[in-house]
Amino acid sequence: MLPAKIPVAVLGATGVVGQRFIARLARHPRFEIAHLCASEKRIGLRLDEAAAWRLCDRGGSLPYAGLGSKRLLPADPAHAPAPVVFSALDTSVALEVEPAFARAGAMVFSNASAFRAEADVPLLVPEINAAHLELLSEQRAKRKWSGAIVCNPNCTATVLALALAPLHLAFGVEAVSLVSMQAISGAGYPGVASLDILGNVIPFIRGEEEKVGAETNKMLGRLLGGAVEHATIVFSTSCNRVAVEDGHTLAVSVRLRGAPSVDSVRAAIERWRPLQEAKLHSAPSAPLLLHSAEDRPQPRRDVETSDGMQVHVGRVRTCPLMGIQFIAMGHNAERGAAGASVLNAELALARGWLPG
Amino acid sequence: MLPAKIPVAVLGATGVVGQRFIARLARHPRFEIAHLCASEKRIGLRLDEAAAWRLCDRGGSLPYAGLGSKRLLPADPAHAPAPVVFSALDTSVALEVEPAFARAGAMVFSNASAFRAEADVPLLVPEINAAHLELLSEQRAKRKWSGAIVCNPNCTATVLALALAPLHLAFGVEAVSLVSMQAISGAGYPGVASLDILGNVIPFIRGEEEKVGAETNKMLGRLLGGAVEHATIVFSTSCNRVAVEDGHTLAVSVRLRGAPSVDSVRAAIERWRPLQEAKLHSAPSAPLLLHSAEDRPQPRRDVETSDGMQVHVGRVRTCPLMGIQFIAMGHNAERGAAGASVLNAELALARGWLPG
Amino acid sequence: MLPAKIPVAVLGATGVVGQRFIARLARHPRFEIAHLCASEKRIGLRLDEAAAWRLCDRGGSLPYAGLGSKRLLPADPAHAPAPVVFSALDTSVALEVEPAFARAGAMVFSNASAFRAEADVPLLVPEINAAHLELLSEQRAKRKWSGAIVCNPNCTATVLALALAPLHLAFGVEAVSLVSMQAISGAGYPGVASLDILGNVIPFIRGEEEKVGAETNKMLGRLLGGAVEHATIVFSTSCNRVAVEDGHTLAVSVRLRGAPSVDSVRAAIERWRPLQEAKLHSAPSAPLLLHSAEDRPQPRRDVETSDGMQVHVGRVRTCPLMGIQFIAMGHNAERGAAGASVLNAELALARGWLPG
Amino acid sequence: MLPAKIPVAVLGATGVVGQRFIARLARHPRFEIAHLCASEKRIGLRLDEAAAWRLCDRGGSLPYAGLGSKRLLPADPAHAPAPVVFSALDTSVALEVEPAFARAGAMVFSNASAFRAEADVPLLVPEINAAHLELLSEQRAKRKWSGAIVCNPNCTATVLALALAPLHLAFGVEAVSLVSMQAISGAGYPGVASLDILGNVIPFIRGEEEKVGAETNKMLGRLLGGAVEHATIVFSTSCNRVAVEDGHTLAVSVRLRGAPSVDSVRAAIERWRPLQEAKLHSAPSAPLLLHSAEDRPQPRRDVETSDGMQVHVGRVRTCPLMGIQFIAMGHNAERGAAGASVLNAELALARGWLPG
Repeated sequence: MLPAKIPVAVLGATGVVGQRFIARLARHPRFEIAHLCASEKRIGLRLDEAAAWRLCDRGGSLPYAGLGSKRLLPADPAHAPAPVVFSALDTSVALEVEPAFARAGAMVFSNASAFRAEADVPLLVPEINAAHLELLSEQRAKRKWSGAIVCNPNCTATVLALALAPLHLAFGVEAVSLVSMQAISGAGYPGVASLDILGNVIPFIRGEEEKVGAETNKMLGRLLGGAVEHATIVFSTSCNRVAVEDGHTLAVSVRLRGAPSVDSVRAAIERWRPLQEAKLHSAPSAPLLLHSAEDRPQPRRDVETSDGMQVHVGRVRTCPLMGIQFIAMGHNAERGAAGASVLNAELALARGWLPG
Repeated sequence: MLPAKIPVAVLGATGVVGQRFIARLARHPRFEIAHLCASEKRIGLRLDEAAAWRLCDRGGSLPYAGLGSKRLLPADPAHAPAPVVFSALDTSVALEVEPAFARAGAMVFSNASAFRAEADVPLLVPEINAAHLELLSEQRAKRKWSGAIVCNPNCTATVLALALAPLHLAFGVEAVSLVSMQAISGAGYPGVASLDILGNVIPFIRGEEEKVGAETNKMLGRLLGGAVEHATIVFSTSCNRVAVEDGHTLAVSVRLRGAPSVDSVRAAIERWRPLQEAKLHSAPSAPLLLHSAEDRPQPRRDVETSDGMQVHVGRVRTCPLMGIQFIAMGHNAERGAAGASVLNAELALARGWLPG
Repeated sequence: MLPAKIPVAVLGATGVVGQRFIARLARHPRFEIAHLCASEKRIGLRLDEAAAWRLCDRGGSLPYAGLGSKRLLPADPAHAPAPVVFSALDTSVALEVEPAFARAGAMVFSNASAFRAEADVPLLVPEINAAHLELLSEQRAKRKWSGAIVCNPNCTATVLALALAPLHLAFGVEAVSLVSMQAISGAGYPGVASLDILGNVIPFIRGEEEKVGAETNKMLGRLLGGAVEHATIVFSTSCNRVAVEDGHTLAVSVRLRGAPSVDSVRAAIERWRPLQEAKLHSAPSAPLLLHSAEDRPQPRRDVETSDGMQVHVGRVRTCPLMGIQFIAMGHNAERGAAGASVLNAELALARGWLPG
Repeated sequence: MLPAKIPVAVLGATGVVGQRFIARLARHPRFEIAHLCASEKRIGLRLDEAAAWRLCDRGGSLPYAGLGSKRLLPADPAHAPAPVVFSALDTSVALEVEPAFARAGAMVFSNASAFRAEADVPLLVPEINAAHLELLSEQRAKRKWSGAIVCNPNCTATVLALALAPLHLAFGVEAVSLVSMQAISGAGYPGVASLDILGNVIPFIRGEEEKVGAETNKMLGRLLGGAVEHATIVFSTSCNRVAVEDGHTLAVSVRLRGAPSVDSVRAAIERWRPLQEAKLHSAPSAPLLLHSAEDRPQPRRDVETSDGMQVHVGRVRTCPLMGIQFIAMGHNAERGAAGASVLNAELALARGWLPG
């Protein structure tokens, strides 16, 4: 007999990340959507009245994933009680709402940035730092919550950190120079005005450059004595918006300890098999796909592999300044948002942090 | 009385750069189009039969600039004799044709890469290295030409070198890390297939990364004893194609001698007034425009200033790895191609290298 | 001696149409910007603090057109008194504000739709219905205003009506089937979300299909006994949004009285010389440009001719159902918005309706 | 036991439609790729050396679908013998090559236009005219072929005819006014130059307007006495290229016999269940999907349903000129090309025209 599905609530259900949560969870083997929560003005509406369905309709993401008639509830544990909660809230709202659910006993898997920098909140990417889940003991003790908050990092930081992880493990990363070309879906909906980006590049994304380095150093840090010792990589970051729907492309130069060769770096990427437990449902076939074609990865052509959960690396070559350079690309709205939170919940389930 | 206009020939008149030559020269105060030359299969056709006019029609670029009925000639000094020649030829063709014109006495201003690396051929950008024109004495003596070849550099290298020039002058540039986001017009016509670039980034442009460093070091070199002593800047370069029509955007980090402050760097850019002679017709109001808005320059909004001859610099800030970083943007097909050659011819005229 | 410039106020100065008003008026020979008005939350700010400058920077549209330091005023004749007012207000705001200015004696040239359907308000396009200005006598008498309101029509209706005008004059238009492919700038800023339109077509524009027919019939109507007798053309309209920055492209089929030949239709378009008075400053070199290339007009390549004030017609051919079909294209934000209002003011000035 | 798979050859394997054939056939339950054929200059190369893989990589279309190492053969039955052949050849090549395969006994399912107008060649869309397969008896008798040629129609005609089919059946279609907004993939690779289409509309597609009416009338014709009696619908067609990757959007007005109401038309579309045989593998869940949202269908969001085999209809409403108007949208490269040929082969298999 299959185990019963765990009921979950989705907070911020009508936004772009919220819709991706719905699409993923509606066909999930272990989770089942119990409640959809939205902001005040939408409470009581049916999901399909509250906002247009904006995902491309491929297998499984039928408009509203079959949940169009479900009524929206307040983002409040009294109205939407559930043992597991996925949060696509804006930061300012998350600051209040996520602790309320954690206090009420829910395990909150959050895409918001509100708690990412807190020392007792794991910035979790299962392939990179599954051990950081242990911070939850500390978090519960300190905050007197019966639930907890688990964050996934910023989308750009996630793609970068996954590409760096095997290099940090094999050699140690000392410095990173990063120029990003980021997709419009990273800004949510309505997000980037078409008048700003059609046929254009915007060489600035507010707040993004600061987040990337700080979050990557936390992600790549080691758990020592119940706390994360952050990595100390030096970052230079320049973030740009381009006219791409999904998929952040990163031009990366890295200085690695010992100045390994291009071949060693490629081998370290290919050998990397990070997750030891039984394969998680949303985990990609391999977390990194190393390309050999000289003009790949490309966001429009490669971003959908493994349901958007794979990060692509290509053009690994020598950099006259830093040693090694390459291109990394991954799905900002799946690997960097909705899929990330769901994968985190699957890891928490596998490690016994969830009921069921 | 106005001086008589100098008759010129345009080689490769039906391509994208050729059309820009026509649009510029048709309204030029000192040059006048005498001949339009094209490849064999188009010889004898009227210009307007040979290829569609692909420029956006703004003031002065009326379809075919009023020359639609002009017949195309062979690219051969016997058929298209002229004291001044503008070349938009492909490299392989330029290798044969440009010397033939120079031998026949023409001053050839070339956008092709065929002779850029030759020691006796100036890689000329008037604001940067007007003195390099002196190489022509050497060139004529060595090659026994009565004419000469003057090259303008690759479009990406031109935008980069103009942004670096005041910094090299004021401080000395030691190293540059460059990630480019290049417009489709840089690849000519038909050039980039729409299926490759719509909603996409292509993280590779064949041959581009090698050119940028080598050409910039030649451009920024000093004329010493009749030869150019190349600069010795170390370059890391990663070139990308994006869905922009005109305007290459460059994310640049630089290591400068003496590690100057952001304010000093901004001041050096603003103070730079490079050309001493009477203003050349195609010269921009200022070669560099320094932006203070946090999200500028942007190619679609800024690329057309000064008829595409101005390079834009913005977001000058500290780089934790190299010292200074900024965004540079310029018109690849004007400042980096047709306008560049025309400006070079104007400098040559002002310095007495042309008849008239 | 040149006549003194007439001071004008711009209402809604920070939006996309407002910025185009500023760019046009800042270099106008007869008008001069006295006041810039904005909505409540922006009052007191400098223009360059209130909103980013979003126009492409070509000749004359330098950021903020040199008016960046000007402070924004309330849209109220007590605070921004001027004999001539240009309105880029939203309809709901225009309903209150425009009459207030007209009551205070101002001639209001409005791009808003609020009063377009009023019988005593001219829906003015100088080349089509300059005589409709006479409605102002009626308007003033009836409303007891010392000023008046003059509207320009919806952008799609303007492009369509200009293409139909010579055919209506020469033959009489009985029916029109119209499918539009409309630019994103028609929706203002932020307007169309990039996630909705990048690589997409949206086959619906709220309210647009109803306006086109009604406004075109009013525009093409005759002034009889002090009132406009609307034309009675039957319209079928289907409006679509496409990923184009500026320029609405219309695929039009028409049934004309007498079923004229393609040649007669082309001749009627080419012969049309509508405006008899001394050329107005913002009038295009010719209101219609008839293309012969089989694949023109195209918005990106043709939209900027005559500063965006020319309408382009191409592919005139037989239609097996309606008789004649063709493509029309014009600049929605200039010919269909800011330029339209300014041209209307110039006509009013030439006909003695303005001071000066 | 599963039936053995039928070996097939793909002609024109390296183009955009050829790659879609490969992606579909590599995971097909009844067909199996035996040979990949290409033009002379590519013969002997591996598939992955001959051309870049240009499909977006979603489930099942892994680069080269696992066939990257397969060598390309000449398009000749002596070198690539197979009982079933899929042709993505250019028309001029198809004229010679397809009959050679048919003569050699192969059933050729062709996306080329070479034989579409031949009276004895079915222009087959299984949901519309499965009975037309009977033309093959005539074709074989007349041409003395042991094989045969079956064509699928032009991509625009296919989308249109599927939308019209239930209306023709229920009411009879008398006239159609069509304006198309067609995707770039319809022109193949390299196809449309990015400089032509980025931010633009091209209001002309060579040869397209003529094909749509003629092919639709053949498709919708009845088989009478061994020949197809073409329908006699009158067409007005205006074809435009827009910046969309996949999916032709059609704005359609129709005159139907008896002038049915919008509700009757919607009902006719929803009731239509055309294919009587056991569901074919590549058939969509329903051939038409009727949308109720006011702004759907949209190509980027809807084109991938049922692996691109579904045609979408929306905005069914009254047309003041023709009676009914609506939007239709379908995947030009699947429903209108590769998927169409494969579905035709499945029908032929189900009806006993293929071995196995």
